[in-house]
Amino acid sequence: MIGCDAQLMLRALPGIPIVQPGDDLGLLVREALVRAGLDLQRGDVVVVASKLVSRSEGRFVALSTVTPGPEAVAMAARCGKDPRVVEMILSESSTVVRETSAAIIVRHRLGFVCANAGIDFSNARPAEANNDTWMLLLPIAPDASAERLRTAVAQDCDGIGVVISDSFGRPFRIGTLGAAIGLAGLPALWDQRGRSDLFGRTLEITVTGLADQVAAAADLVAGQADEGRGVVLVRGLHFEPAVSAASQLSRAPEQDVFAPGGQRTRSE
Amino acid sequence: MIGCDAQLMLRALPGIPIVQPGDDLGLLVREALVRAGLDLQRGDVVVVASKLVSRSEGRFVALSTVTPGPEAVAMAARCGKDPRVVEMILSESSTVVRETSAAIIVRHRLGFVCANAGIDFSNARPAEANNDTWMLLLPIAPDASAERLRTAVAQDCDGIGVVISDSFGRPFRIGTLGAAIGLAGLPALWDQRGRSDLFGRTLEITVTGLADQVAAAADLVAGQADEGRGVVLVRGLHFEPAVSAASQLSRAPEQDVFAPGGQRTRSE
Repeated sequence: MIGCDAQLMLRALPGIPIVQPGDDLGLLVREALVRAGLDLQRGDVVVVASKLVSRSEGRFVALSTVTPGPEAVAMAARCGKDPRVVEMILSESSTVVRETSAAIIVRHRLGFVCANAGIDFSNARPAEANNDTWMLLLPIAPDASAERLRTAVAQDCDGIGVVISDSFGRPFRIGTLGAAIGLAGLPALWDQRGRSDLFGRTLEITVTGLADQVAAAADLVAGQADEGRGVVLVRGLHFEPAVSAASQLSRAPEQDVFAPGGQRTRSE
Repeated sequence: MIGCDAQLMLRALPGIPIVQPGDDLGLLVREALVRAGLDLQRGDVVVVASKLVSRSEGRFVALSTVTPGPEAVAMAARCGKDPRVVEMILSESSTVVRETSAAIIVRHRLGFVCANAGIDFSNARPAEANNDTWMLLLPIAPDASAERLRTAVAQDCDGIGVVISDSFGRPFRIGTLGAAIGLAGLPALWDQRGRSDLFGRTLEITVTGLADQVAAAADLVAGQADEGRGVVLVRGLHFEPAVSAASQLSRAPEQDVFAPGGQRTRSE
């Protein structure tokens, strides 16, 4: 059973440093919790910006070291982008969903659809880096990273959730939203089908994107730029320990009306 | 300048009754604030579920009273839906974006893209209703409703925001998310272009869907079903008083790569 208290609290954990390759993120989070005077309790969710995980994994790429292949060169010419950037986008993706001058929208190798394969140019520089342009790729396996973090931050982590979050743009609406790209402990979805509404009528379709809503909420506190607030504690949710994966939030291409080749009977 | 404290608090206001047509929502929120022992302060955002606004506006439609036109009849046959429901969807929409058996995705007359024109069948029954099937349409003019609420809940409402929220499904990802369909006081977007990242590099593209993230966060607390938690106070944000509208969150069709006829150079 999933639920939420009448009050939900989100708190950026203080003193998280700029993460460097090999840093022990679990230790950094534990130290920050001590600094904040907080003990994790059942139902707590720790939301960690994917950038911190990527940095700890050393997912940096210097632009000058990339040799673009012919597909990247052709696409870059069509889109007006640097072919080396396009090469990295393609290398991180399974399919290209849309190709535009603003962004190349892909299905990431991790299963979700996002712009430019989530490759980041801000806060993407390793320590003692040269003056190259640096890119930061998404974490290698964010669900596994979330699970490692979960066992690292809590002795009895059964009631604790970890979300690895990124900021995604979206079709139809302007502005990025926090989204869950890695998940442990917290259910991905809050399935309220079968519950009754206030009048006793059974709800028809109500599956909430729980982990994405948690990521979006945390993103308000984390900010995007120089706050150094990459870890946010969310307190007030209830959930049973769940074997979960961020991929549960991604619609399969054949079930998506907006995916290439997806179900479509009319477009005007 | 927009910002957020290191701590963000969300609280469902207690004792909000089932709203009936003609109810004074501003009064209900003021009474709930008193009940909770809370005074609104600068930076507070009151998030109100659109359903409460719709109910107060009496946006109920009994299915048996709807006479479907030929377009609705034809579409209903293609989609396997009730033609009277399709008639109401079309009457609330400017264009049909995708037509599927699961949902008819439209550009709503209010400008955003959503499934089934946001028409709701849960908690959609007016007081003393007959045994008909009832539908609840979205509010008539949610931005105006938000502004009215804003002046009703706070004497000096300059630093106060109001969001009218709904739950939207989305392309590519599973599960609904809270979204802002009406807005007053709070900026729709948090534009961080031009800010520096931790290494002093200027951020390239970072416009956050601020009001949507607030709606998504509040949705965690509000729940979807029988909680009766349709009003959530969000405390911890900072923003300058803004003349805002929820339409600022909607991408114009010609700027959306996923809209019919939108920019597209490749699809595979």
